[in-house]
Amino acid sequence: LSNVSKNALIEPRRLKGFRDYPPELMVVRRAVMDVVRRSAALAGFAEIATPALEYAQTLLGQGEETDKQVYRFKDHGDRDVAMRFDLTVPFARFVGENQGTLVFPFKKLQMGEVWRGENTQKGRYREFVQCDLDIIGVDSASADIEILGVFGRVLADVLGSYGAGAFTTAVGNRVVLSALIKRLLPGVGGAPEGGAGGETGVLIALDKLAKIGADKVKALLAAIPGASEAGAAALLQALMTKDAKGSTDLAKIKATLAGDEPALAEVERLERVVAVATNVLGKAAGRLVVDLTIARGLAYYTGIVFETTLDALPGFGSVCSGGRYNDLASRFSSRELPGVGGSIGLDRLVAALEEAGKVPAARATAKVMVAVATDDSVDYAFALATTLRESGVPTDVGLGQKLGNQVKYADRMGYAYVLTVGTSERDAKTYALKEMKTGETKADQPAAGVAASLKALLQ
Amino acid sequence: LSNVSKNALIEPRRLKGFRDYPPELMVVRRAVMDVVRRSAALAGFAEIATPALEYAQTLLGQGEETDKQVYRFKDHGDRDVAMRFDLTVPFARFVGENQGTLVFPFKKLQMGEVWRGENTQKGRYREFVQCDLDIIGVDSASADIEILGVFGRVLADVLGSYGAGAFTTAVGNRVVLSALIKRLLPGVGGAPEGGAGGETGVLIALDKLAKIGADKVKALLAAIPGASEAGAAALLQALMTKDAKGSTDLAKIKATLAGDEPALAEVERLERVVAVATNVLGKAAGRLVVDLTIARGLAYYTGIVFETTLDALPGFGSVCSGGRYNDLASRFSSRELPGVGGSIGLDRLVAALEEAGKVPAARATAKVMVAVATDDSVDYAFALATTLRESGVPTDVGLGQKLGNQVKYADRMGYAYVLTVGTSERDAKTYALKEMKTGETKADQPAAGVAASLKALLQ
Repeated sequence: LSNVSKNALIEPRRLKGFRDYPPELMVVRRAVMDVVRRSAALAGFAEIATPALEYAQTLLGQGEETDKQVYRFKDHGDRDVAMRFDLTVPFARFVGENQGTLVFPFKKLQMGEVWRGENTQKGRYREFVQCDLDIIGVDSASADIEILGVFGRVLADVLGSYGAGAFTTAVGNRVVLSALIKRLLPGVGGAPEGGAGGETGVLIALDKLAKIGADKVKALLAAIPGASEAGAAALLQALMTKDAKGSTDLAKIKATLAGDEPALAEVERLERVVAVATNVLGKAAGRLVVDLTIARGLAYYTGIVFETTLDALPGFGSVCSGGRYNDLASRFSSRELPGVGGSIGLDRLVAALEEAGKVPAARATAKVMVAVATDDSVDYAFALATTLRESGVPTDVGLGQKLGNQVKYADRMGYAYVLTVGTSERDAKTYALKEMKTGETKADQPAAGVAASLKALLQ
Repeated sequence: LSNVSKNALIEPRRLKGFRDYPPELMVVRRAVMDVVRRSAALAGFAEIATPALEYAQTLLGQGEETDKQVYRFKDHGDRDVAMRFDLTVPFARFVGENQGTLVFPFKKLQMGEVWRGENTQKGRYREFVQCDLDIIGVDSASADIEILGVFGRVLADVLGSYGAGAFTTAVGNRVVLSALIKRLLPGVGGAPEGGAGGETGVLIALDKLAKIGADKVKALLAAIPGASEAGAAALLQALMTKDAKGSTDLAKIKATLAGDEPALAEVERLERVVAVATNVLGKAAGRLVVDLTIARGLAYYTGIVFETTLDALPGFGSVCSGGRYNDLASRFSSRELPGVGGSIGLDRLVAALEEAGKVPAARATAKVMVAVATDDSVDYAFALATTLRESGVPTDVGLGQKLGNQVKYADRMGYAYVLTVGTSERDAKTYALKEMKTGETKADQPAAGVAASLKALLQ
């Protein structure tokens, strides 16, 4: 490794695809993360964290495309290591490693950065934060209800705190979908190794519904080896026929699946899960609909699958998604650990709030500043600031600049009030109060009631 | 890149030097991070974040030892990239890149993981979280006071919330120390290129005081080329003579530095900063003492330097440290940006709380669980859990296991109360309440007042 000269100036620049979060972007991210944690904790989900780096062997093997995007290198001990690509695989490793001490069902929240060396596009970054909630160790309708409930409540709390309005969670089921494909497109068979045909091809085509529309999806389906045009049309009609509530018409689905008892049991479970989750969440937490067109890609899911979109931003895509899987830690343990869970993309959610115009432009945590007119009033200024801070009023204080520059700074920071103190205020135990919006100033305010006064003004 | 087989079992293992945070470790970390953020926000420090990865050129050049520990590799675009080693250098790059839009003085909090490929020792990890607070763009006594004040308050709030007792912040000054070295060890001169002698050698020797004691440090000092035994003794005596408050005796220091006006001005500033900061913080926030033996290593610092230790754990070392520096972004910009700041090692602080026996063993966020005796009471159980959650009572719910297993789970999770519901409770709108500690159960509790009842019990 060559040494870099300490004297030559280096151009300060971020890596392509990475971004900084200055205060005005960070305030909303932290607020959202706080709400996620608080809402999850209320439902008994405990937070965990795992390292950024893992053995490459732990992370790789998730598919060729994914493997290519993993940041991978040799560490100082010549170990083949990699930066985590998502939170799911490290979590599987964590559960595999700690299964002896964890208490199941294990309800966990994990929030953290993940890294993907993918081609950058507008709004896509190579580092982003995921918020994952999962319930491991139990396969039950109750766990499905609990996971839909916690995501609904988390999103309701986040969106509610920004006045960002209603959202809809569409819930499908992969067992039911698979049974429908077998019945209506009997010729396509299972997923061929590495190919795009078979059932996998059907799922991939269905995932494009929102993007390209039913006609084009029908053509894609009909082109799959073993499929027919009539079968493709029948499948789409079965999936897309809605009942009065806007859900896939499950009465028709049951008729179509007559005789397939395992599939019919899954339809019953799906109906029940959505009904109870709707009751659990109540009106505030958005709408739940059954939507059997939700396919969610590849081999992973084995029960419910779900995606949440904001009603005001139908084109924005999902801000939350997940589903049930049979065996979280199958690569690490022979013990079967069924689970249900999902992921909120923090940055997508924040971007949605921004696109909906719901993020206030705040760069500062304080609303009030104590400005210092004379050097002999520094002690007094700090005492006043301390009183405000200890009363819970976020307060800035002048730090040795000239008074005029302090007031300019307060203006640029967007502070609502400036309390100026000099020798006479110090001696009289008062302050001069300036309302920044109007420019109005009131002299000789008594310091004794400063916290109560400012709290009242800021309400 | 070779593909990993999906079928062979992989041993689930972390990389050496990295650790997971299961709920029982994560609860306290998050709580501490929350208190840091809340306390910092009250004083007007705004949070920022920068990426984990930077151009290697940005991060390297901080010294041979440091450079060796940086995780460095080629990314997908063949760029020479590295994982951040601390938060200071990325922050300098951030300020250099954004100096046109930032408002100065810029008061920032940054919390995040840093990575160092160093040899692992007990209690040292290759990934750990730093919490940095800095004020950039102003060189003033007020900024020094503000930084000592915010760290004091943050630590007081963190330690106070765990009942972890008193702490002491020792404040030195590098200008004063340097002037004392010039006067009392005139022969040693400045820092020789890459060597251990000169003023740098003196600082390194002084940093060992707590570890090896005054006699051995005196011997190290006397051995520095150009130093004398008498000079070494005089320097140590000047630095270590205490006044009645336990601070370095500044009256004696002033006498020693007679005639050196710039150094005397720094002594005055140091006295004033510590006096005002003491007033600002009040009794709750720990003791501030002047301690001119605080050297803090190498070339970086140009004014106050400080280190905080817990009074109950004098041997544990510092949990917080920092100082004033002249030019944060000197490698990135010709604009001079003076600053003052420091860093709390989150993991060291948590370790200190643990060592002091102050961290409660909590693995769960909930305290209450609704257990479900019959399948027909699932709706009712979720309704009861929802009522509790929406009233702010963190509540878990049975997820489809047999009732006996649900109660075992509640016991292992350490829940205080289990509310059991079955068909008859559902019909009567009641629940059976079991206090887990005593095993006592009360039947037929009315659901109507459930939130108020549980809140009262948990108080």
